[in-house]
Amino acid sequence: MILIVWAHPYPQHSRANRALLEAVRVLPDVEVRSLYDLYPDFDIDIEAEQEALSRASLVVWMHPMYWYSVPGMLKHWFDVVLARGWAYPDRHGGGGTALHGKSCLWVTTTGGTEEAFTAEGRHGHSFETFVTPIEQTARFCGMQWLPPMSLHGAHLVDDAAIALVRDDLVARLKSWSQNGKQSHAE
Amino acid sequence: MILIVWAHPYPQHSRANRALLEAVRVLPDVEVRSLYDLYPDFDIDIEAEQEALSRASLVVWMHPMYWYSVPGMLKHWFDVVLARGWAYPDRHGGGGTALHGKSCLWVTTTGGTEEAFTAEGRHGHSFETFVTPIEQTARFCGMQWLPPMSLHGAHLVDDAAIALVRDDLVARLKSWSQNGKQSHAE
Repeated sequence: MILIVWAHPYPQHSRANRALLEAVRVLPDVEVRSLYDLYPDFDIDIEAEQEALSRASLVVWMHPMYWYSVPGMLKHWFDVVLARGWAYPDRHGGGGTALHGKSCLWVTTTGGTEEAFTAEGRHGHSFETFVTPIEQTARFCGMQWLPPMSLHGAHLVDDAAIALVRDDLVARLKSWSQNGKQSHAE
Repeated sequence: MILIVWAHPYPQHSRANRALLEAVRVLPDVEVRSLYDLYPDFDIDIEAEQEALSRASLVVWMHPMYWYSVPGMLKHWFDVVLARGWAYPDRHGGGGTALHGKSCLWVTTTGGTEEAFTAEGRHGHSFETFVTPIEQTARFCGMQWLPPMSLHGAHLVDDAAIALVRDDLVARLKSWSQNGKQSHAE
């Protein structure tokens, strides 16, 4: 199962991110958890989240990028769901293998253009600079980090540019789903 | 005025971070906003936060590091308080200068030892790698980024090591306060 953890506080203002979600939520083997809908007061149901993660072979973190990172809700989700002793070992080195061997795909949309993510641009650094903390979060939990997907200038790009990323994402999830089923059948 | 934005979800389990807070909260010219106390349901009072920021010349973000970043509450605070048109220009390039010229000091405590923050260590990257998104957040709002302070291995270090960082922080805030007063009098 592919679990899409979706974190968008203002889906009604989203064009690109919502287009991606609508394309993937209808795929077979996909479950979507929309965190801002599920938890309007940030009171995350840790057990429900961990249970969904346990059933997934691929975890997708999908959200608009805010302040060079995940939105506050998804960061809070990291803090409480990826718990010590469950997602990584306890102080005595025990447990913490719940996510081992699963894969993680990061899909994000940004307001900034690609040129903004340069030393001379308004964001002062390459986009890759801001990938590292998210990637390291997944890796620390023993997940395999897949090549992330990003769509820059989400407010500016035309429909064709969104469709390109959308179709690529759909193709990747379909391929995962098929290969996952095959390897189960072996 | 020095505004300390404190974000610790479990202060009763904190040793190092709480020691820092207790030492600085009694200083003159210091105001503390403890986000997890103020907003148990994450319903941040944006106006109150912006009003406090407006009165500050130095903004201190102080928290334990979770997942290579700020805790979820402080990330949510970034998302909603550092608003477009207030903290950075609106889509037409207007406004967004509320924080210009203020200074920002980042003070964080980590569970990992310094050796963990290396390419070979369990965090896979230097600590500086994880500073960039926070620093860029402050800079994007036109704040001056001061040399950050960090205390690693917060659960492991002895009282003397905590005292060293605490005294350094107190000295820096006292010096800021005195110089700030002087420049106001000029």
